[in-house]
Amino acid sequence: MKVAFQGEPGAYSEQAVFNYFGNVATKPCESFDMVFDAVVSDACESGLIPIENSLAGSIHQNYDLLLRHDLYIVGEYLLRVQHCLIALPGVKKEEIKRAISHPQALAQCAAYLRRLGIKPEQGYDTAGSVKMLKESGARDAAAIASHRAAEIYEMQILEEGIEDNSENYTRFLATSKTAVKPEGEAKTSIVFTLKNQPGALFKALSVFALRDIDLTKIESRPLQGTPWDYLFYIDFIGATHEETVRKALDHLSEYALTLRVLGSYPRSR
Amino acid sequence: MKVAFQGEPGAYSEQAVFNYFGNVATKPCESFDMVFDAVVSDACESGLIPIENSLAGSIHQNYDLLLRHDLYIVGEYLLRVQHCLIALPGVKKEEIKRAISHPQALAQCAAYLRRLGIKPEQGYDTAGSVKMLKESGARDAAAIASHRAAEIYEMQILEEGIEDNSENYTRFLATSKTAVKPEGEAKTSIVFTLKNQPGALFKALSVFALRDIDLTKIESRPLQGTPWDYLFYIDFIGATHEETVRKALDHLSEYALTLRVLGSYPRSR
Repeated sequence: MKVAFQGEPGAYSEQAVFNYFGNVATKPCESFDMVFDAVVSDACESGLIPIENSLAGSIHQNYDLLLRHDLYIVGEYLLRVQHCLIALPGVKKEEIKRAISHPQALAQCAAYLRRLGIKPEQGYDTAGSVKMLKESGARDAAAIASHRAAEIYEMQILEEGIEDNSENYTRFLATSKTAVKPEGEAKTSIVFTLKNQPGALFKALSVFALRDIDLTKIESRPLQGTPWDYLFYIDFIGATHEETVRKALDHLSEYALTLRVLGSYPRSR
Repeated sequence: MKVAFQGEPGAYSEQAVFNYFGNVATKPCESFDMVFDAVVSDACESGLIPIENSLAGSIHQNYDLLLRHDLYIVGEYLLRVQHCLIALPGVKKEEIKRAISHPQALAQCAAYLRRLGIKPEQGYDTAGSVKMLKESGARDAAAIASHRAAEIYEMQILEEGIEDNSENYTRFLATSKTAVKPEGEAKTSIVFTLKNQPGALFKALSVFALRDIDLTKIESRPLQGTPWDYLFYIDFIGATHEETVRKALDHLSEYALTLRVLGSYPRSR
């Protein structure tokens, strides 16, 4: 089995692939588009994409890509993000004057860096920053990335868990050409559009509330071409092979202009 | 009167300031944070911030900043975004090999650039790209920015309206230390949190639906520190001095853990 992810080897997405799928072959991709393309073209059986971070919020580009591609969501995985301060072997923490990483990782370690008087420097990628640092040979700089990135590039971890807020999780979705029928507790993701009229969203949510179906996420995205109209993405507990869910979706299609089920999949805790 | 905006002189935000406020003094700010700080510190009477683009979606950073600051929303403005291809005086369109601009502006002109065989090059800002281009003196390059940016830097507009999708609008919000009581058709923006239980959002929306109050926007953002709990931002038609709206908000506070009115303001069409 081969799984596509976005980033360099050692990226948090690659860690999520191994944690979720076990010991599989991986395909690093430059962009999220390429992760989707890898599955569509059968180069990979699955692609694992980040959809939401507990601090930064949704990765909207991936919502848009789910809509543009004919793939199913077949699983979810929650990764606890732990940032490491990484330097060349032999470098001491006191020597570090600047830290290179992806802007979001820098932001998540901002208080830590301020406390140590380390200047943040934007890089394009977390694992990529480790690679760059190694190539540059700089001894006054560190990179911020995963434990695994330090191992891959044979670099030294000066400190682990340097994120300011420990409640830092990223939710990933596994995509595939084939839908799954989940056993046990499941989640379903759907996307729909509504008539732009008073109470439209209220009616749409009623199909779940009236059946005690628990929503776990709602996200709105602009509908291209018609300003101030929205697509709604909803995740709820349950699977499409369950009668209650089937009835709720039948009911929703009475109000929705368009409705697509992106997939039912085992819930991750 | 002095109004803060984010960007260089000639930015789309500055255009929105003049369109909305008329001939006022402006304060260009490097970041959105600094636009909020300018109002809090009384350096400016108002700050105008982009909150949503009809193609790219919400600017989530500004939702987060609204929450962190004790300011009111006092107005909204819809700007039609029209991108221009801008070059040094005397340069011909056929000479252009690359175009520099903010990544979002480049993305909005991607098909146009491909058609002309022009390579996109990322800059930090639309108006800033015009400034940089002028300083570099490059004759094989263009910048993508507003009509006004071309005028300010005395550059040539090779083509106007080069965006791929003409339904390109940005919605701006005006902030102030003092709330307003809008005459005529009004909008109100609120932010609230809910207990994480089945039907919570449905109940929250019922307070509007049962009173025929029209929602125009719903947005969710992560609640810092409690993963997978959300803040909800809602815009609706009406003002807090109207009895129906007051009753709806009283009703909502029965379900909401926290509720804050960000402001009532005249609706823009």
